[in-house]
Amino acid sequence: MSTTQTSKIEIIKAPTSKINEVDFKSLSFGSVFSDHLFECDFKNGEWQQPVIKPYAPFLLDPSSRVFHYGQAIFEGMKAYKDENNDVWLFRPDQNYSRFNTSAVRMAMPEVPEDIFLNGLNQLLQLDEAWIKKGKGNALYIRPFMIATGTGVIANPSNEYKFMIILSPVSSYYSGDVKVIIAEHYSRAANGGIGAAKAAGNYAAQFYPTNLANKEGFQQIIWTDDATHTKLEEAGTMNVFFRINDTLLTAPVSERILDGVTRKTLIDLARSEGINVEIRSVLVSELVEAFKNETLKEIFGAGTAAVVSPISGFSYQDVYHELPKIENTMALQLKTKLENIQNKLDADPFGWTVKV
Amino acid sequence: MSTTQTSKIEIIKAPTSKINEVDFKSLSFGSVFSDHLFECDFKNGEWQQPVIKPYAPFLLDPSSRVFHYGQAIFEGMKAYKDENNDVWLFRPDQNYSRFNTSAVRMAMPEVPEDIFLNGLNQLLQLDEAWIKKGKGNALYIRPFMIATGTGVIANPSNEYKFMIILSPVSSYYSGDVKVIIAEHYSRAANGGIGAAKAAGNYAAQFYPTNLANKEGFQQIIWTDDATHTKLEEAGTMNVFFRINDTLLTAPVSERILDGVTRKTLIDLARSEGINVEIRSVLVSELVEAFKNETLKEIFGAGTAAVVSPISGFSYQDVYHELPKIENTMALQLKTKLENIQNKLDADPFGWTVKV
Repeated sequence: MSTTQTSKIEIIKAPTSKINEVDFKSLSFGSVFSDHLFECDFKNGEWQQPVIKPYAPFLLDPSSRVFHYGQAIFEGMKAYKDENNDVWLFRPDQNYSRFNTSAVRMAMPEVPEDIFLNGLNQLLQLDEAWIKKGKGNALYIRPFMIATGTGVIANPSNEYKFMIILSPVSSYYSGDVKVIIAEHYSRAANGGIGAAKAAGNYAAQFYPTNLANKEGFQQIIWTDDATHTKLEEAGTMNVFFRINDTLLTAPVSERILDGVTRKTLIDLARSEGINVEIRSVLVSELVEAFKNETLKEIFGAGTAAVVSPISGFSYQDVYHELPKIENTMALQLKTKLENIQNKLDADPFGWTVKV
Repeated sequence: MSTTQTSKIEIIKAPTSKINEVDFKSLSFGSVFSDHLFECDFKNGEWQQPVIKPYAPFLLDPSSRVFHYGQAIFEGMKAYKDENNDVWLFRPDQNYSRFNTSAVRMAMPEVPEDIFLNGLNQLLQLDEAWIKKGKGNALYIRPFMIATGTGVIANPSNEYKFMIILSPVSSYYSGDVKVIIAEHYSRAANGGIGAAKAAGNYAAQFYPTNLANKEGFQQIIWTDDATHTKLEEAGTMNVFFRINDTLLTAPVSERILDGVTRKTLIDLARSEGINVEIRSVLVSELVEAFKNETLKEIFGAGTAAVVSPISGFSYQDVYHELPKIENTMALQLKTKLENIQNKLDADPFGWTVKV
């Protein structure tokens, strides 16, 4: 391994690349990682020397706080390569600021911009061969932070590890997604951590989602935990409803994640002349719209799948299959967004940032 | 290191003990660990060879699911040593069954009884020198399980690690505990994971608790997230209120942990002839009881502190200091319970189990 110092980041290069072992034609989402990772530790009240080094397991004490008290947050981003082999990020400022919003809510230190964004840029430059051209292809980026301080006492840790790992992905095809509307289980409390990208929010969803899977549904549409009358998120995504030609989505809140794809789709839809209403959508309203045939589409929105169309929903043991329609807004918006992300279309919004 | 096989558990002994480096007179809770730990991995759908080995850091992949999706649960227990040097556990069956209840809710595999309890027994026998005699002295036991499968996709892991680590503790003295009643933040949702000892539940409390600390309060009394009118837990403990000579505590629910100390205190109080009501206690009722001077005591109950008296509470920016009284139920029950746990009194309930 050769060690060099580049603008304060220590870089330890992997002696050989694993890239030739990877079949980029059949990637399973998030399961293969690139040659290097970025790492920076927080100790004694400050961020330490950042390092880029070969992707490898690392040592943790059995009493590390992340295992016992769950201080762990993450982000999901993607890097794209255009026809000129230039590498692009999509709205990285949004992920950076949300990461620190999550950090504050979980009583973790905020990560400085030069560590997060400069670290990411240099890591992407080193592993740029892992980013493939073409629509749907991307390098999925996973920045995350965990509590590494030791001791089994329920207080915030005084040591943390921030890391960025990279996973090549191709177009995410979720297939036919049927959902069930939550009538009992919930993903977030009022005054809770639903708006943070906190690890614990995801584990909480697995059991109810397994129950839904057994009944033949791929995902759950989460409702507010107090009344189960308001539609909030779909699985791990934000959710949109099209009633007639209006798109509806819930406002972000303490219970609802401020999704980057969500806010991007809102802007994109409005620029396409689509009427978008940001307001609480009631379960009763959805059922009513289904009955009077004004409910045209439901789709999830998130970084991994971009847009994920939902084919029908179950509520109070009744399944409502949406009619198949042509020219869906889901496909229109997904195509528009992917073309901007992959630099196949112009980006009048200034969302894409060159690495 | 010598390797021997004892009733299916592989035992790798530490070459030397760290015990002489430990000052048992000034222990900081949960910060020192004994010579050995118990470990058992879950892979390919089954539990693997259990091992007792020297306490040491272990390797994890950066994409381990525990870091990203928070599948992590734990228990808190204690082992005690009596005057004859016999070692005792307190209601270990309760912790064992609650551990598996947590596992189910977090979509993790249940741990078989012979792995959990037999593993614990053998670990305690090996590290029995770490258990000191005398009231308040104990070996704190931390069984925990984390998701070790790799891949950044929000699905349950297919690999897990179950561990038990041990930390010597002395009497836990919390000092003067003033609390603030939660009016905005919450620890649990209806249909959420508040009843599970899930790591993520604890991290969620740190930020609001830090805010309370800054205002001069040590802990928060959590209320229901939907209305903030019902008193539910105090910090990481269950909570009891004494109005006149009646003890009140909330029923366990999806939002409230089924605490072993809680249920023990209920039985112990009743056996002492104290009237105990298990029902929702309203914030308004507490304020009213304070005003008409029928509110005598508030205390938390948990494994670490056993009983933690609360000296006053703040609600809607008004601080209510409880009058100092003699012969508190908190002290009466704590003494009774610690005497049973440390085998200084008879145990007519059959709660103590010899290792």
